[in-house]
Amino acid sequence: MQAQKRLGKQTMRMAGDVKIIGSASIAGKMEGEGPIGESFDEVFEDAHWGEESWEKAETKMQKETALCAISKAGKAVSDIQMIYAGDLINQCICSTFGIRDLGIPFYGLFGACSTMAEALSMGAFVVDGGFAETVVCGTSSHFASAERQFRFPMEYGGQRALTAQWTVTGAGMAVLSNEGTGPYITEITTGVITDKGIKDASNMGGAMAPAAVSTMLAHFTDTGRTPDYYDLILTGDLGKLGSDIVREMMSECGYPLKSNYNDCGLIIYDLKKQDVHSGGSGCGCSAAVLCGHILKLMSSGEVNKVLFVGTGALMSPTSTQQGESIPSIAHAVVLSNVKEN
Amino acid sequence: MQAQKRLGKQTMRMAGDVKIIGSASIAGKMEGEGPIGESFDEVFEDAHWGEESWEKAETKMQKETALCAISKAGKAVSDIQMIYAGDLINQCICSTFGIRDLGIPFYGLFGACSTMAEALSMGAFVVDGGFAETVVCGTSSHFASAERQFRFPMEYGGQRALTAQWTVTGAGMAVLSNEGTGPYITEITTGVITDKGIKDASNMGGAMAPAAVSTMLAHFTDTGRTPDYYDLILTGDLGKLGSDIVREMMSECGYPLKSNYNDCGLIIYDLKKQDVHSGGSGCGCSAAVLCGHILKLMSSGEVNKVLFVGTGALMSPTSTQQGESIPSIAHAVVLSNVKEN
Repeated sequence: MQAQKRLGKQTMRMAGDVKIIGSASIAGKMEGEGPIGESFDEVFEDAHWGEESWEKAETKMQKETALCAISKAGKAVSDIQMIYAGDLINQCICSTFGIRDLGIPFYGLFGACSTMAEALSMGAFVVDGGFAETVVCGTSSHFASAERQFRFPMEYGGQRALTAQWTVTGAGMAVLSNEGTGPYITEITTGVITDKGIKDASNMGGAMAPAAVSTMLAHFTDTGRTPDYYDLILTGDLGKLGSDIVREMMSECGYPLKSNYNDCGLIIYDLKKQDVHSGGSGCGCSAAVLCGHILKLMSSGEVNKVLFVGTGALMSPTSTQQGESIPSIAHAVVLSNVKEN
Repeated sequence: MQAQKRLGKQTMRMAGDVKIIGSASIAGKMEGEGPIGESFDEVFEDAHWGEESWEKAETKMQKETALCAISKAGKAVSDIQMIYAGDLINQCICSTFGIRDLGIPFYGLFGACSTMAEALSMGAFVVDGGFAETVVCGTSSHFASAERQFRFPMEYGGQRALTAQWTVTGAGMAVLSNEGTGPYITEITTGVITDKGIKDASNMGGAMAPAAVSTMLAHFTDTGRTPDYYDLILTGDLGKLGSDIVREMMSECGYPLKSNYNDCGLIIYDLKKQDVHSGGSGCGCSAAVLCGHILKLMSSGEVNKVLFVGTGALMSPTSTQQGESIPSIAHAVVLSNVKEN
């Protein structure tokens, strides 16, 4: 079984069926006004969503999105054997407080904005490994809770660099199971931490792009595939600058990306009309885009094979203050309507 | 395979062999002067360990401990297919920066002080699931980096409550493999978040004790075992107060713990001679105790069956400031010199 499951250095193939049998996404007002606003299960107008703090609003997002996904999968909370989640807020409190009331066995993750891909990876491992039949995987981010923790007090109204991205207020949760209907998770490529020495915390896309490239190259090498194999190659949240770098680097490496390449940070906002500079970011960006828009495209058959490459910048304000560069990581998950292997 | 691997609601049994084929622990001066000081592979005298900051010293601990564990397992870094790690410092920078140079595919975890148990669980899942042959699992904490992040500036010299615990400066890493020599990981019990409403951030042991009890009860129910089955039942870092609560609660629930019960927070320091109040805490507490002292006891045959229950308090300074209580979690890992099933 070992030889069958491991393909090369970083990629693993599922032996049995792991399917996404349900998913949900909830987002804020600005995301609701964007190009894929219709794909979210719920959009809330006020950043507090009736809570006393932005952190509590994000906590509510995790809980409500999980409940919605479980319901859409036709399951009860008691059917869920494990939940994998994390977020950007210190000590992942939006996940732990959000999941606290559900009574589901829980493992906390920290992958920064790669968390959705990491959670899907962990979920696929335990389902395919025979440790669980049904699990939930997800994450969230909130513009205001992230902004005040990572950058400036909201009241400060600081001018943002043009390379900066806008943290998505949103959450996405997916229910994975070995039975039921939905796209398969067929392969996982685990990322290696990449650090090209970028120190500008307003240029996350640039810092994360080499990690996305590293993981994509590993994936194509391990599987023997080329970018053409996929209907859609989707990076997490590199935005305009980062995705341009990815295109350039992939071309230089002999794997040019064509019109089947896109980035969640470019999909969730209208960069011409919405004042988001380089695009969207945050754990919730790829989570909400994947669990809403992309899975709907797969359900309708508009796309059938997706390489989802979640990207994360693994720094903190403390590391930046101490003069450190920004290590990044990307994990890839293959979603497919057909299971060939 | 599913039915065989799942025992009850929260416990999973490994179908094949998952062994700890090597481990290492590195700790600070105070831990080196404690009762199990001899068990650490290295003890550093100065809290900075030659680095410019405490965070960088903790980063160095993660890297050096991983390298030491890999070497002791008779492996090269290139043999390691995945590493699971996390820590207490915001955005888990001590893990990500520590592992950055190793080039090993990496998944970041956040389980607060339960991280060692969580990492071992993830590692066991992927090895037994056939996704990897050899993985590394570990975590760290550092008194000074944690103290200034979670409590007060070090220079403040604030008086500590008698219920407070002392964050261990230490790291532990374990190498898991499906081949080789060492104790088996035979079962995993995943924890559910427990919150009894405790809001006192100086009483982590009290907050975490109900989580430890919840997971132990689930483990005994799922496996049909009683506490007598184990040579050693070891909670993560509840300290004196928390472990007394565990004893009381377990007795009330019909599973009295006897002399085979201990807590890593009581083992690492001499509570009478070292000024640590209720005992040790921090991710590095259970990691360093397990990867040094306990695995040595297993190697010598002094103990053969261990129930390791890592406990974590899932709060943050922000959640405490917002008036929230302290959700906690505990994950259990069974280590055994013999594999019965």
